[in-house]
Amino acid sequence: MENRVTLKELSKLLNVSISTVSKALRDSPEISPETRKKVKELAELNQYVPNALAQNLKNRKTKTIGVIIPSILPHFFAKALHGIETKAAELGYGIIICISNESREKEAESIKRLMNGRVDGLILSLSRETQASKDTSHIMDILKYRIPLVLFDRVLEEIDCDKVSINDALQAEQATIKLFQQSCRKIVYCTGISNTSVDDQRKIGYLQALESLKLDSNFVEFDTPEVASAAIQKLLKQDKMDAVLASDELSAILAMKSILKSGYRIPEDVAIIGFTNGSMSEHFVPSLTTVDQHAEEQGSLALETMVDRIEGKLPADKLNYKLETSIIQRDSTLPE
Amino acid sequence: MENRVTLKELSKLLNVSISTVSKALRDSPEISPETRKKVKELAELNQYVPNALAQNLKNRKTKTIGVIIPSILPHFFAKALHGIETKAAELGYGIIICISNESREKEAESIKRLMNGRVDGLILSLSRETQASKDTSHIMDILKYRIPLVLFDRVLEEIDCDKVSINDALQAEQATIKLFQQSCRKIVYCTGISNTSVDDQRKIGYLQALESLKLDSNFVEFDTPEVASAAIQKLLKQDKMDAVLASDELSAILAMKSILKSGYRIPEDVAIIGFTNGSMSEHFVPSLTTVDQHAEEQGSLALETMVDRIEGKLPADKLNYKLETSIIQRDSTLPE
Repeated sequence: MENRVTLKELSKLLNVSISTVSKALRDSPEISPETRKKVKELAELNQYVPNALAQNLKNRKTKTIGVIIPSILPHFFAKALHGIETKAAELGYGIIICISNESREKEAESIKRLMNGRVDGLILSLSRETQASKDTSHIMDILKYRIPLVLFDRVLEEIDCDKVSINDALQAEQATIKLFQQSCRKIVYCTGISNTSVDDQRKIGYLQALESLKLDSNFVEFDTPEVASAAIQKLLKQDKMDAVLASDELSAILAMKSILKSGYRIPEDVAIIGFTNGSMSEHFVPSLTTVDQHAEEQGSLALETMVDRIEGKLPADKLNYKLETSIIQRDSTLPE
Repeated sequence: MENRVTLKELSKLLNVSISTVSKALRDSPEISPETRKKVKELAELNQYVPNALAQNLKNRKTKTIGVIIPSILPHFFAKALHGIETKAAELGYGIIICISNESREKEAESIKRLMNGRVDGLILSLSRETQASKDTSHIMDILKYRIPLVLFDRVLEEIDCDKVSINDALQAEQATIKLFQQSCRKIVYCTGISNTSVDDQRKIGYLQALESLKLDSNFVEFDTPEVASAAIQKLLKQDKMDAVLASDELSAILAMKSILKSGYRIPEDVAIIGFTNGSMSEHFVPSLTTVDQHAEEQGSLALETMVDRIEGKLPADKLNYKLETSIIQRDSTLPE
């Protein structure tokens, strides 16, 4: 890479202007076919790589969207990326992706890395640290430099940009009511993703439902699978659980395993609804009833909004999409 | 983004040279503190973003590694990315990721997108199309421009670059022998990832083991879950299956579900070993005995090799790592 020739060096070698070399490489009819051929041969011989940013300075468009996600391991983000990727290909854009690993510092680094002229816009799902601290100065940099920004799934309402998310509170409320309708009265909220906006919203929805139904709340919040299993088995022994609303796929699976291991039946003794519709939810036995967060649709809509924003097709006022979601009925709740 | 000011415009506004502006922005002691302050204020006011590539042309290092993977949905690649990401952070590098969606054309586009001065090197796991067609002209471009390249997991031996993979043939052979030692004599090979180098290698290992054990082979190759289930249930009915070697996680899970649904026991009636150690393998009931492909370690070693190559710490001859793998004993095979 160190030995790559520049336009200037090519122009010297051929004794023509830089502009001639550049036009010849872009097959401009202004340049004679002979010169074009000569320039291209020399460029190839010297391993010339067109300088993306030098080109961008001309037309100021990279046709590339930067995407930053908090983690690659949860299936939700893999599916959201898949949605972003597919829609980008359809609209003639490419994407480049960075992972913040739930760290505010890495998120800020990724923003700088992508922002330095590499991308036309940024799509972000915020890291847990940023959501917990609400320190968004690094996000404000994006807006300051007038680079289009779309937040998806993990958003902060106070940031002035386009947003795509689901109405987590409403969904959690409806899922809780669905459990109540199956005669569950001891509904436990189980989460492995505390301190994220989605979890906060789901808790709000859960508590709202319980309040209107006049039921007591009970929480299992955990860092490790062992903690989750122990807490669930304790609640079962104390007869304090006949349903689980699980905020993430892993906690739903851990809850089901604990319940089955303790000799209880799903859904007859304990019914469960989870969030995120990953492959574990689909293939576990019993399969898991889940709130479909439409990961692919969120990704797809975020990308489409970004492209519309870049291409000047949207009004100045920012958009705030709240996707309608639905509950996918499977075997961990009673049939309707 | 269209309105961003350039160094040249800043230099005109301040009536100083471009070089002075550039040095002032980099806090060079050559420039007086007053001028530095003035330049920075104006730059901020005009939303100046340093041009990454213009900077790269100076020091020719982006401290960024490009990564292209064939798909984001299989857990193997999510884990490999996690390994790449973690090691990169440790060594002070950033990564940017593109997805080829198993398409040779998108792989070529991603290479161009990343190669144009954005990255110091490329880490690739080849798309299915590239592996099937063996048309590697787009990969040869990387080598032609002397950009360091590391292939991982899905590699082609004929490409002259550093490689990190597991010895798939040997692992499949050992897994087959393990099933034989559990008294299985009707071992079926099940795959949903035909036409990849890893699958080809695993088939070779499976066939080698069967030849030495004087057993017959039997294959289930499928595109959709329905096809897989139907084929497996047919083999069970015909009494042609007492073990499954599954080339990917999804086919292992589908096989287990079909077997259980047909009323057979795992591992007593049919034993199963899968490849890839994803979360479904761990959490399914029964949990799946798998060949651990060390996804994170492959990613981590690929990144480390890349950085060593970039920093001139490796000999000119290319390295070809074949990672040792191991079998993780779980409940889908008899205990040893």
